[in-house]
Amino acid sequence: MTKKTKINSSRRNFLAGSATVAGAAAAASVMPISIANANHKEAGARGLPSWTSWKKRSALIIHSDKGMETHRDAIGNSVITPLRHVYIRNNMPTMSDAQIGNRNNWKLRVEGVRNPKTYTLAQLKQLAQVTKATILQCSGNGRGFFKHKPRGSQWETGAAACLVWTGCPVSAIVKDCGGVVSGAKFMTSAGDDMPKQLDPKKALVERSVPIKAHKDSFVAWEVNGVDIPNSHGGPLRMITPGYFGINNVKNIGKLAFTAKESDVKYMKSSYRISPIGKKGSQYPSCWEMPVKSWITSPMKSAKSGNVVISGVAFGGTRKASAVKVSVDGGKSWKKAKFTGPDMGKYAWRRFVLETKLKPGSYKIVSKASAGGKSQPKVRMENRRGYAHNGWLDHGLDITVS
Amino acid sequence: MTKKTKINSSRRNFLAGSATVAGAAAAASVMPISIANANHKEAGARGLPSWTSWKKRSALIIHSDKGMETHRDAIGNSVITPLRHVYIRNNMPTMSDAQIGNRNNWKLRVEGVRNPKTYTLAQLKQLAQVTKATILQCSGNGRGFFKHKPRGSQWETGAAACLVWTGCPVSAIVKDCGGVVSGAKFMTSAGDDMPKQLDPKKALVERSVPIKAHKDSFVAWEVNGVDIPNSHGGPLRMITPGYFGINNVKNIGKLAFTAKESDVKYMKSSYRISPIGKKGSQYPSCWEMPVKSWITSPMKSAKSGNVVISGVAFGGTRKASAVKVSVDGGKSWKKAKFTGPDMGKYAWRRFVLETKLKPGSYKIVSKASAGGKSQPKVRMENRRGYAHNGWLDHGLDITVS
Repeated sequence: MTKKTKINSSRRNFLAGSATVAGAAAAASVMPISIANANHKEAGARGLPSWTSWKKRSALIIHSDKGMETHRDAIGNSVITPLRHVYIRNNMPTMSDAQIGNRNNWKLRVEGVRNPKTYTLAQLKQLAQVTKATILQCSGNGRGFFKHKPRGSQWETGAAACLVWTGCPVSAIVKDCGGVVSGAKFMTSAGDDMPKQLDPKKALVERSVPIKAHKDSFVAWEVNGVDIPNSHGGPLRMITPGYFGINNVKNIGKLAFTAKESDVKYMKSSYRISPIGKKGSQYPSCWEMPVKSWITSPMKSAKSGNVVISGVAFGGTRKASAVKVSVDGGKSWKKAKFTGPDMGKYAWRRFVLETKLKPGSYKIVSKASAGGKSQPKVRMENRRGYAHNGWLDHGLDITVS
Repeated sequence: MTKKTKINSSRRNFLAGSATVAGAAAAASVMPISIANANHKEAGARGLPSWTSWKKRSALIIHSDKGMETHRDAIGNSVITPLRHVYIRNNMPTMSDAQIGNRNNWKLRVEGVRNPKTYTLAQLKQLAQVTKATILQCSGNGRGFFKHKPRGSQWETGAAACLVWTGCPVSAIVKDCGGVVSGAKFMTSAGDDMPKQLDPKKALVERSVPIKAHKDSFVAWEVNGVDIPNSHGGPLRMITPGYFGINNVKNIGKLAFTAKESDVKYMKSSYRISPIGKKGSQYPSCWEMPVKSWITSPMKSAKSGNVVISGVAFGGTRKASAVKVSVDGGKSWKKAKFTGPDMGKYAWRRFVLETKLKPGSYKIVSKASAGGKSQPKVRMENRRGYAHNGWLDHGLDITVS
């Protein structure tokens, strides 16, 4: 029996023993539904996969069994994205509770340090703790706006979330292990979730990031106040703030300091930002996220008079410093104000512009700045549709009546 | 048929038509359970009331049909309390969806202003928006520690939560209504949730706060990224940051600026901090919350060696500035450090102390400061067990092995 088959059958058995899938979906509707989402069509017959049936169906657009994005108006205005609304993009099948076992016994092997060690999750919890808000964003968020139709989920804005994580700082682990070996240039993390019959070169999610990123990184066991759900990479996930989602390795089992980048497919050839028609490891990897923003309200229409335009902005590894909003597709701009808690440089800020609009048609766009850089007008064309932060494509056409 | 009966029967019908209550409870367990809570005994046969079946049963201690508190270790380490773990304390029955109708049509009457107006929720959303993190805390949180057994829910620490709200600032409403009438000294809010057959003098939740509090107050429709659930006072709730929960009036239908305090029971005689054996409106009302903190981990035991002690601290209307932790019941103190996002002066801060402990017994206590004031050692004795912020009672006895 393959590992994947085991996952599915154990889930089926669990559900059969306690509640039907239909029962689960119906019960979820007891939780109040945001008005904004109440009218969303639930795309066709495709429901939530059983391994993530606790999600809120009406907050999500389901692209595939391994990819679902948050509706643009379902991230809310509370800075932190509700967990039941958060997007999912999995390269490996989600691990089952049976595969994970006792979460506190989950193991992390640390290599490329003076005194290599293996920690249990319980030991990491006792070593040191940090809590940070970060943006989790798929490298391909915004892919749906590319005209050459790159392969992959056609995300618009919803493969992104702002979440609060708690974990053990990598710096505390490094210190406890006597420091990094000399010559190390990368922090390399590998998941422990690959079904064993697969070829690691092709299927292991092992990602290297520049070693400087380890200073703010941590291995997390909690998100938004609960244990990290299996479908989001629990019990233990690497969090590298400001870096694209793929670097935030799920089910981390190995943390290594290495002289070279990993040579698995997910590092060497995937997640490279290459010109259309070209590929290879010579192109930049999806590492630090660029500055980005988008409008979340109003989505389609508004009443004339006072209108509150709002959205989110973030700067990747730099703090978002300002956002401008245009209602005429970028001809003229007004400065928006930030509202809501400032959760640190790796979180997004909510912005609002209170303005007066007469009846008519408007194209509302936003442009954020961070660390002296602003969003470009147009997307950077690339083969797989990665790292899109052009402001024009992210605009919304609004009718004011 | 009374209003209360209608609520219950409409809920029963809804559940009968879509899922059984048992099915709902079973489905909820699909959402991952925090390890800390996995071992909680679900107190007797008492389950979640059907009107709040979307809550996580294992995160809550159910005191009564109208009162349930969060387990001390179920607020998480993410600053913001997960909504499914948040305590509930209702004076009125929760309104049903049928009673509320279209949320955007909910009405707020504004009086005691130059140009009195009635707004719909949709109009408030268009007027102005603000997002803030605040502490919601029942006046009686900590009542369970009083020795004279005051009447009411025997809360320990869990009738408190840190939440992010979005709404319309009262200041924007006042401006839109031409300013406050002269002579107004209080902001008085009334709920629209009282069953009609009851006597308003005895049952209307109408609360007055000093008018200065209106500057930071707002009427909120969103909490933690979703519409405010009915059981938490949706569709519209007054949020007066830094003031006890009762002043954050649920289902607000009237906002008035008044020369005098309301004369209903919930203002005049209830929620007064009076000596044991005495009562009356001459005693202070439960308004601003005092500085407070408590430990959330470890709860009972830890392994010897490095131990991470953590908890939460807040200052009411003043920013929490420091927290000290003692492992010997207050004989000696160490300064803890804050970790996690600083969500503004009305939110709580998470604090941690990394220390080394040998095998033995310890009494862990914490003492926070804000605005030049520190928590007192002992509780202020009072008839109904309100406003407890003494640090000694909030300590935990820990065994290190």
